[in-house]
Amino acid sequence: MSPETRDKEVVKIIEGFGDGILGNVSKSESPKFKVPLRSLNNIKFDRAANLLRLGDKTSSRNFLNIAHSKKFMQSAMIASKCKELVSKGKTASIRELYYQLKHAIASTKENTFEDQGESDPLIVDLETSLKVLREELHLKADDKGTLIGNIIIEDSGDLIDCSKLGRSGLSVPSIVEHYKFKKIKADYVLVIETAAMFDRLVEEKYPQDNNCIMVSTKGQAARGCRRLVHRINTELKIPVIMFTDGDPWGYYIYSVIKAGSMALAHESERLGTPETKFVGMTMSDIEEYGLQKVTEKLKDVDKKRISELLQYPWFQNKEWKTQLQLMSDKGVRIEQQALASKSLEFVAEEYLPEKIKKNKLLP
Amino acid sequence: MSPETRDKEVVKIIEGFGDGILGNVSKSESPKFKVPLRSLNNIKFDRAANLLRLGDKTSSRNFLNIAHSKKFMQSAMIASKCKELVSKGKTASIRELYYQLKHAIASTKENTFEDQGESDPLIVDLETSLKVLREELHLKADDKGTLIGNIIIEDSGDLIDCSKLGRSGLSVPSIVEHYKFKKIKADYVLVIETAAMFDRLVEEKYPQDNNCIMVSTKGQAARGCRRLVHRINTELKIPVIMFTDGDPWGYYIYSVIKAGSMALAHESERLGTPETKFVGMTMSDIEEYGLQKVTEKLKDVDKKRISELLQYPWFQNKEWKTQLQLMSDKGVRIEQQALASKSLEFVAEEYLPEKIKKNKLLP
Repeated sequence: MSPETRDKEVVKIIEGFGDGILGNVSKSESPKFKVPLRSLNNIKFDRAANLLRLGDKTSSRNFLNIAHSKKFMQSAMIASKCKELVSKGKTASIRELYYQLKHAIASTKENTFEDQGESDPLIVDLETSLKVLREELHLKADDKGTLIGNIIIEDSGDLIDCSKLGRSGLSVPSIVEHYKFKKIKADYVLVIETAAMFDRLVEEKYPQDNNCIMVSTKGQAARGCRRLVHRINTELKIPVIMFTDGDPWGYYIYSVIKAGSMALAHESERLGTPETKFVGMTMSDIEEYGLQKVTEKLKDVDKKRISELLQYPWFQNKEWKTQLQLMSDKGVRIEQQALASKSLEFVAEEYLPEKIKKNKLLP
Repeated sequence: MSPETRDKEVVKIIEGFGDGILGNVSKSESPKFKVPLRSLNNIKFDRAANLLRLGDKTSSRNFLNIAHSKKFMQSAMIASKCKELVSKGKTASIRELYYQLKHAIASTKENTFEDQGESDPLIVDLETSLKVLREELHLKADDKGTLIGNIIIEDSGDLIDCSKLGRSGLSVPSIVEHYKFKKIKADYVLVIETAAMFDRLVEEKYPQDNNCIMVSTKGQAARGCRRLVHRINTELKIPVIMFTDGDPWGYYIYSVIKAGSMALAHESERLGTPETKFVGMTMSDIEEYGLQKVTEKLKDVDKKRISELLQYPWFQNKEWKTQLQLMSDKGVRIEQQALASKSLEFVAEEYLPEKIKKNKLLP
């Protein structure tokens, strides 16, 4: 669906939200709307789809319930502003939205909003309730991430050939809904946790030599980055392979790209990429490549995180339990950049091509 | 000077460093080298140049001083590895450098390096001692920042037209020494603290309408970003204007772009851009644009930071003392995005063009 068509749909969805409220009023009922619960007990792991999802539990916001009135008004204000944004083809950061809506309520000393802590959760309420991505409401989170490789993207009328961006690459924006993929020639997308490893592979001409696109998440992936990976995978049918540090934080970053996150379980379907596979760093790599000298001791906070991961349903498979258990037993973690101890070129010339060719990937 | 010529120079400088040590040995002296002191009492603010600089104090590293021996060996290892990197046309992150040099010392149980905390400060020693930028030693810090606007940059053989990158922009890498500026058409560079404000101005087509290049630092500017701004200003003679939040943190980010930072005082001359001017947010803007409703109360940590800034020699001028004093008196801060309370377009259509046209800029 083109972004323009989706915009029209979203406007209709928001109007439907307003119509619901009007309908209540015309029947002399308390205006109300339903919001799916986002608490942990309503987050399920859908094993078949390999995605985190919200369950069916909902709560109701009633205007005539004094505890709900202010939030109800605020939600309606946000919905109305989003409709305006989408209709005008404008986007706003969630902070701008807050400033746009903050004002004194006529003939009172009350402000519509006191701080952004009030508007942010209501934006999520609205997303879940309308089943519309924040980005489709034209609201922006922070951006982060860089892309390089053989893909031509049309962005606001410009054709960007991402294989011709030197060592710099394309800055992945917070909203990628408007991207049109014009041409792609790539066997897979390699998603990389650290900027330094991304730089290394750019320098070694890895994308050219291995016919792949590379995306750097620079730590936990921002929404724009996750959505971009999802779109490339689902729309262009390009496999995704992820490469992180060998520690519980890296493994969690992987799981978010693959299955979605708990905080955004309502959006996993459009942000997660269940087909993603994992190339490294694994705990087995340490023996296999003789990296014992360049591991680092686990800190208490790492150990705690490993136990948490071992509880998550989406890590309940043999391969991941083995890796996490090995990490715990060895008491060490290993970074992507530790591969530099072999040689700077090792990761690009041996480690990655060999593991990917032999399909030594984790699910 | 072309990057290739500079590379050859840097190799000679590193060889000179080695020759010095060899000279000591051949004269049966203890091998030694001098390192400029980087402690606060050796950092001076050069008022005429408007730059932070290192003073003349140095200390000496002597191989035959037991307290110095290990660091001496480590410094020599780093210098040797940097010579290899520069000669081969390779770059490495400072973490990769650490992993590359970490190994057991033959016939001992000692490692060359135990952790990166040992190699990082020695890299700075080497930079200051050789008067060579880290980037010129082909070592990389983290990258951050995005550029958009009417400039064509040659990066590793690719010609990148930064006015044709849609809403995404160019990801500014950690090393920009290899950038060649092929063509530029811009009245000024607008350097912007927050990614969200950068996005806003991209969406409003501010660079096209105002014939400028925009760079987003995304908080404190990374070295690559600072060096890029410096190069555009000094090589292409394009003025630089900075736009930050109206708080002590934003003002400090401005001062680092302009005068350099204390931690990198030895590199201010190549990272700082003394001609930079400041457009906002100022405390005077609050009255002028009726923004009283969208300020935020100062926290204790903000107040403490204001007092610190008031002590720094590079804030000792009437304009900045007035702003900092006003902030302290009003007890509020104001964000760039608070301008959205007027309208989303206000910043691009009124605030910036008016202030820049009327030269309402701080020094």
